[in-house]
Amino acid sequence: MLFLQNVSKYARVLAATGAILATNAVFAQHEVDDSADAGPVKISGNENAFGYSPAAMTAMMQSLGGINRYARTQAEDFVAAVAAHEKVPANFILPTPGSGPVLSMTALAYAAPGKNVVTVTPGYTQLTNLFASQGGTVKSVPLNENLAYDLKAIEAAIDKDTVIVYICNPNNPTGTVPDPEELKAFVRRIPKNVLIFADEAYLELAPGGVEKHSLAPLLNEGLNMIVSRTMSKAYGMAGLRVGYGMAKPEILTKLRPYYQGGPNLLALVGGTAAILDKEFLAENIANYAKVREMVTKELAGLGIKFAEPNGSFIFMETGIEAVEFQKLMLAEKIEVGRPFAPMTKWARVSIGTEDEMKRFLVAFKKVMTAQGKLKG
Amino acid sequence: MLFLQNVSKYARVLAATGAILATNAVFAQHEVDDSADAGPVKISGNENAFGYSPAAMTAMMQSLGGINRYARTQAEDFVAAVAAHEKVPANFILPTPGSGPVLSMTALAYAAPGKNVVTVTPGYTQLTNLFASQGGTVKSVPLNENLAYDLKAIEAAIDKDTVIVYICNPNNPTGTVPDPEELKAFVRRIPKNVLIFADEAYLELAPGGVEKHSLAPLLNEGLNMIVSRTMSKAYGMAGLRVGYGMAKPEILTKLRPYYQGGPNLLALVGGTAAILDKEFLAENIANYAKVREMVTKELAGLGIKFAEPNGSFIFMETGIEAVEFQKLMLAEKIEVGRPFAPMTKWARVSIGTEDEMKRFLVAFKKVMTAQGKLKG
Repeated sequence: MLFLQNVSKYARVLAATGAILATNAVFAQHEVDDSADAGPVKISGNENAFGYSPAAMTAMMQSLGGINRYARTQAEDFVAAVAAHEKVPANFILPTPGSGPVLSMTALAYAAPGKNVVTVTPGYTQLTNLFASQGGTVKSVPLNENLAYDLKAIEAAIDKDTVIVYICNPNNPTGTVPDPEELKAFVRRIPKNVLIFADEAYLELAPGGVEKHSLAPLLNEGLNMIVSRTMSKAYGMAGLRVGYGMAKPEILTKLRPYYQGGPNLLALVGGTAAILDKEFLAENIANYAKVREMVTKELAGLGIKFAEPNGSFIFMETGIEAVEFQKLMLAEKIEVGRPFAPMTKWARVSIGTEDEMKRFLVAFKKVMTAQGKLKG
Repeated sequence: MLFLQNVSKYARVLAATGAILATNAVFAQHEVDDSADAGPVKISGNENAFGYSPAAMTAMMQSLGGINRYARTQAEDFVAAVAAHEKVPANFILPTPGSGPVLSMTALAYAAPGKNVVTVTPGYTQLTNLFASQGGTVKSVPLNENLAYDLKAIEAAIDKDTVIVYICNPNNPTGTVPDPEELKAFVRRIPKNVLIFADEAYLELAPGGVEKHSLAPLLNEGLNMIVSRTMSKAYGMAGLRVGYGMAKPEILTKLRPYYQGGPNLLALVGGTAAILDKEFLAENIANYAKVREMVTKELAGLGIKFAEPNGSFIFMETGIEAVEFQKLMLAEKIEVGRPFAPMTKWARVSIGTEDEMKRFLVAFKKVMTAQGKLKG
């Protein structure tokens, strides 16, 4: 009886919320159109301004009534969808809230005094910083002249105490990708006792996508490797916290003690629907490709140096300290990325909508001209 | 333009989903009424069958459009709501997906070979198992004759190598609570170098609630203590993964390396709304009290021994091995709790709706009579 009372309460909520949401959708449209009144353009955190699968939204709305219970079948459905999508066995898949926990768990499971992880500079440091905090050593290899991986230098850095090679592909913050065949040959060649960590957070957005570049299919060869993927980037669901690690079961068993739980019920349901909505993902990828090309053409025309972008961001030389550049751009209502040592006179700029990037380019030219870095 | 296209897509989703949800609400009602067709009654995982705040559902629906971005203001709002609710400073609060991560982080931050954690048997083992897996020692103290904490015995177990005393209140699986004044005197008295971990997952449901029993207000005295709380139980949002740890900043700093992220955006928004919906929480607490009393009266009438329940479950003596009892009850379409060593001839039964518990009692009498544990 009490339960029935609650159900009817929910029914009233649902009716009311329909109207609220319709209003919100219109309001969102207004915000995009009326740039003069809008807050800063947020192109600092590699968020997806194009949005996420409407099928995922529908699935989550339908699941809101069931969140009083723990996710069970929802986790199974998610794993099944990922397994089919990635063409790896279901017991290779560990669902996580974003891919960050996979990086953390790996650092905790493998770090020890005397052991080292090989990475690149500038690179993404979540795994390597935690590895160092646990007493391990970080061996960092410079990028090549194209701000891309120098696979031979990475291989040369591997020694008898190396336990992990961390490959973020595309590399964050530079956005570069190695040649996929060279990368595959590299991971097949390095010592079997060294774990390869392939962080493929942005890989859907690279030309050719996961099909051309991903190391996930190589998991079926039994390699000592973890591949992590997040739905925060190309799938546009950063706030939902959904992702996964993939590895053979004996590796996942090593990570288990550090597992703090999977994505929540709504994230699992939304994630499953988004994986199945291949059409929307393709649309999002096309959106990124189009806007990325528009911005790089402009930058090239201005004579600005930038690394070849394959993700949802562009790493460009400003000649201005990144912290200062952030302030100057914020004064123009544009939020850009934080510094990435040691290349602190470069900026990482996330790719927003076409409209947002036009606003960025106007502000960029104004700031760079005022700072004497561009001729007015 | 592409964004506008997506917005109008969402608008179509929202209209369609209103109808779907209305249907679902009716269907849920149907399931409760028609017990003959329903699946098993799930009273195994301490889930809340009464549901969660409609205000939380509304808030989440309104936030669905924004999950392409990371949660920022949503996390700040959640922390502010918790701080006001708990009457502790905002920088004492670490939002987590449920309270499980607080237990895990604490075990990882404090465990070391030669160090020990003091706990009780039977008790909740998430923190202590992980502590042991990291090379630490678990010192376990028996419960007293009422299956409640023997605070003097716990104090006596503390030695120079003790780093944590773990207090789950109410204790899981027994549901007992210590006298609040004795507990407060205990935590003020034990050595300052020993961390008190107060796991208050079920405390809202104890008679007198958090106001009477919680150790959280003592955080303002500067005690070496972590208090964890989850919204999975009394708040009815287990699948949403939302909870928090509370401690002074220097303790939270120790946990930080092991932090794998907060609740997702929807969980933060739903959690905030649920904390502010004090009326719904009161309703849920009343529901539990009413059904708990109904069941314990029946059990007492049958002469069944049980621990005094203060949470969302009842720990009762069946005289049947718990694994066997689970099977026998499942044949009657009732899912009950797992074994809790060493009291494996007792069962932990979660409290469901009044209707569900009536079905439980019918099945319970049938099974217990058939097994010769009750006179027919």
